[in-house]
Amino acid sequence: MVDLSFEKPSKVRKLISEGAFKKPTAGLCRGYAQGNLVILPKDLAYDFLLFTVRNPKPCPVLEVIDIGEKEAKTIARDSDITTDIPKYRVYRKGKLEGEYNDIQKFWRNDFVSFILGCSFTFESALIDEGISVRHIDCGSNVPMYITNIECKGAGVFSGPMVVSMRPIHVKDIVKTIQITSRYPKVHGSPVHIGDPKTIGIKDIYSPDFGDAVEIKENEIPVFWACGVTPQAVAMNVKPEIMITHAPGYMLITDIKNHELARL
Amino acid sequence: MVDLSFEKPSKVRKLISEGAFKKPTAGLCRGYAQGNLVILPKDLAYDFLLFTVRNPKPCPVLEVIDIGEKEAKTIARDSDITTDIPKYRVYRKGKLEGEYNDIQKFWRNDFVSFILGCSFTFESALIDEGISVRHIDCGSNVPMYITNIECKGAGVFSGPMVVSMRPIHVKDIVKTIQITSRYPKVHGSPVHIGDPKTIGIKDIYSPDFGDAVEIKENEIPVFWACGVTPQAVAMNVKPEIMITHAPGYMLITDIKNHELARL
Repeated sequence: MVDLSFEKPSKVRKLISEGAFKKPTAGLCRGYAQGNLVILPKDLAYDFLLFTVRNPKPCPVLEVIDIGEKEAKTIARDSDITTDIPKYRVYRKGKLEGEYNDIQKFWRNDFVSFILGCSFTFESALIDEGISVRHIDCGSNVPMYITNIECKGAGVFSGPMVVSMRPIHVKDIVKTIQITSRYPKVHGSPVHIGDPKTIGIKDIYSPDFGDAVEIKENEIPVFWACGVTPQAVAMNVKPEIMITHAPGYMLITDIKNHELARL
Repeated sequence: MVDLSFEKPSKVRKLISEGAFKKPTAGLCRGYAQGNLVILPKDLAYDFLLFTVRNPKPCPVLEVIDIGEKEAKTIARDSDITTDIPKYRVYRKGKLEGEYNDIQKFWRNDFVSFILGCSFTFESALIDEGISVRHIDCGSNVPMYITNIECKGAGVFSGPMVVSMRPIHVKDIVKTIQITSRYPKVHGSPVHIGDPKTIGIKDIYSPDFGDAVEIKENEIPVFWACGVTPQAVAMNVKPEIMITHAPGYMLITDIKNHELARL
């Protein structure tokens, strides 16, 4: 397999759409932002869009595709949202029906596709500034937790915020907050630092999703709003059908990470 | 009339709802943000909300009230959107039907109310930092212009961006951009500085709305996205009914200006 680390997003999306690449997308097209996907029928789209507006930290919108359309015109030119992600999940009434490499056969003209920012962007900013990210060093998934922080409800959508955690050395805490604050479109500044119990996490070594990571001496757990939140909240509603990316299998966009840094 | 410059927003909203105050709201409740209002029927709400998401500079959302509800719970506790603004405008099929001190008789259970940020907040930040604002010094309305900058369309909504202009001394340009950049929820950084022709303005002394102001020697015209944009765009669609605040008669919120400064 050729190395796709420094390939153009449009070329990698094409490879994916042709079935020539089926693995997780972390590390591909270095420097370009990747996005989470949520597809819902139009009758739920207003409530879901309002939920993202009311909860921008867990749900930072990169693009909402026009109803029935498949191309993310603004952030991924000539893309096809039904083929350009290596692995999708189809949920019916809140239950996982299956995982698929494309979703053409499920497509409906009343579908609205939401692309949401993903933490890969701020993680690469942290690493660029010399702050290491534990789960990346370990080659594992980021640990994620359901908290006691209630999202602001919108219509049928409501539920607790899911957060991700990265242990940070005390000497780097200020810099970590400064760096991630610059990226509001990819979850932005932390929602909490320190004692996990404050936000309702009983055991930091038993995450609700992903893998536990060690917190070493002189490290403090730092928590960010997580893109799993909107999926978890949407699942509560048990929509007739909902399609998402599979965790780790993202949409690679044409947007450079630094374009998401606020000015 | 008692001086309301330093009164609490909740008290002034109550006075307004009782018909005891019917004038423009500029200068009231110093330090608190004021908001623009757009009310539309639910069938247009998704497209309009998406328009605000795609065009955050002209349409910075402070709150979207739940369908059929009248209280802006987050930014104006115990408010009633049908009575707490001193003057409203009712439009039918894009034509102004009339101005009213309250809109109770027009209320429908399918109405969705959008409160959008207003430039009063960044103007008071500029003044606090020693940068004078010409139209305020002159006691006139800010000059506003229809530009050749196209907003990103959303469903039935599309159209050009309307901007407001403030002449700024060359020595204060950098500071002006820095200060207003801190307030993305009230139009944020300028969209243009310098030659008006670049953004399609033929005669800076003939604004499309508001009053012309003098541009003195060593001053540069600075242009910000303007809250008139969403109303102008909504008008193009000629909705069966649309209700807005009357220009200068705003919703006074419980949010302090400094709370809208980004962190």
